[in-house]
Amino acid sequence: MRIFLDCIPCFVRQALDAARLATDDKKIHEQVLRKVLALAKDLDMSQSPPVMGQKIHRLIRELVGTEDPYRDIKKQFNNAALQLYSQMRTYITGSKDMLETAIRLAIAGNIIDFGVNSRLQESDLEKTISECLAAEFSDMQLKPFQRAISEAEKILYIADNAGEIIFDRLLIEQLPIEKVTVVVKGSAVINDATMEDAVLAGLPRIVEVIDNGSDGPGTILETCSEVFVDRFKEADLVIAKGQGNYETLSDVDKNIFFVLKAKCPVIARDLGCDVGEMIFRKSKTFRNAVDLVKEVE
Amino acid sequence: MRIFLDCIPCFVRQALDAARLATDDKKIHEQVLRKVLALAKDLDMSQSPPVMGQKIHRLIRELVGTEDPYRDIKKQFNNAALQLYSQMRTYITGSKDMLETAIRLAIAGNIIDFGVNSRLQESDLEKTISECLAAEFSDMQLKPFQRAISEAEKILYIADNAGEIIFDRLLIEQLPIEKVTVVVKGSAVINDATMEDAVLAGLPRIVEVIDNGSDGPGTILETCSEVFVDRFKEADLVIAKGQGNYETLSDVDKNIFFVLKAKCPVIARDLGCDVGEMIFRKSKTFRNAVDLVKEVE
Repeated sequence: MRIFLDCIPCFVRQALDAARLATDDKKIHEQVLRKVLALAKDLDMSQSPPVMGQKIHRLIRELVGTEDPYRDIKKQFNNAALQLYSQMRTYITGSKDMLETAIRLAIAGNIIDFGVNSRLQESDLEKTISECLAAEFSDMQLKPFQRAISEAEKILYIADNAGEIIFDRLLIEQLPIEKVTVVVKGSAVINDATMEDAVLAGLPRIVEVIDNGSDGPGTILETCSEVFVDRFKEADLVIAKGQGNYETLSDVDKNIFFVLKAKCPVIARDLGCDVGEMIFRKSKTFRNAVDLVKEVE
Repeated sequence: MRIFLDCIPCFVRQALDAARLATDDKKIHEQVLRKVLALAKDLDMSQSPPVMGQKIHRLIRELVGTEDPYRDIKKQFNNAALQLYSQMRTYITGSKDMLETAIRLAIAGNIIDFGVNSRLQESDLEKTISECLAAEFSDMQLKPFQRAISEAEKILYIADNAGEIIFDRLLIEQLPIEKVTVVVKGSAVINDATMEDAVLAGLPRIVEVIDNGSDGPGTILETCSEVFVDRFKEADLVIAKGQGNYETLSDVDKNIFFVLKAKCPVIARDLGCDVGEMIFRKSKTFRNAVDLVKEVE
């Protein structure tokens, strides 16, 4: 997905919010803002929005002078999610369709996104869980998804944020775990999950976890490590979590299921849904293995 | 009031909204945005926010190539307000305190502000009228105001927006009309009222109307005509309507009553009120004639 004009005021607001989350120093807030305005005025609109996000957060880290200015807030939401974990597992095991419930919960976790909303409170989590369990889910493509995971041999689950990754674990546990590799960011950017968060979620004990070698708030393939790009190419199914991964991978020719909450009007318009809706959708070029065999014949 | 960091993303958003209201040409939207970003990155934060608004709207008019890109929308809201006029007069004549009701209605009219909200609908007007008639009004300083208008000899009523100026007429009719001069903008800026709107509101038939010679969305004294600045100095009471006039006059040493709806968080913080609250407040340096006499003695 490319950058739309509406993304520009949002970048500027996000930069200010993120600078304030990272430090109380008002001089740095102003420096960040002025530098982001300078970047934005010459912006290449054909890029995906996280390319700008990557630049903004490099700037903030440089000016604040710490590698991970959101470590505390990531810890806070990891802990909040961990406290909800057992309860959420009960929701899944007690439900009619465990996979569907796990997908709904994974989407609920996508509310933990400090790029979109820096004012998120822990109390918002339980509210979002209830909403996502009860909401109409027009986009639910459970059968195609079940077919895709059974046909696939190598599944990449590209995680999104800290805290959210504990919600992801619930969905990962419902997948054929031996086929799955979880991907986190190579280094800190906003509240995106890194290896530290994956460890805290207990993921390396149950599944392979790798990082993508990048500090982009999404999957900007050009800035990912070769190792990751090879794994991405090899995978026959990708589960891409959250807005940043949708924005960066929506035009990539690959079998992808996008799993997210549409939290901004630009993404909602791109997806043809309302803001707040749960999205569980195949990529435009998605082809089942059987169709691929037919194409070859 | 100076520019706060939170004003910056808002300027960028307002510029995009205003460009879209002015033209459907997406190339111009992008040009406006890039030029506003360039202006904002070097912004002097000690200025009042309307100084930036003035620059933004000069840019839009220049790029769109029309003197008054919002003429149609101003007409629409003038007509909508005119249709409500008789009903609103009935509210006033039927009320316990006619002056207070007229003040509440004048504040209701302040919702017609395309700087703050470009998505305003005509249907919002009646809703806002009901709300403003019923709402708690902690800021109502009716007695000091009555005293000020009775002591004053020369009252300037500085109007704000088109449409809103018809609501202002209701308040102006409750004042000692022979002392009052109404002020409109010298030329078009967003949906601010100009002489054309004052004429449509029927004001020149009942009161003197002058313009301030400026295209600033507020009262930026440095860019107003000498004639207006002299009248401003001579006046012993100023009634300043709306956010733009508050932002530009809040630090001026003058007897001013500010009449507005606090529509943005920055102004609300500056005023120490909630967003949406009705404000009817004396300037910091306000002194009654009697106090002035005492000071001289």
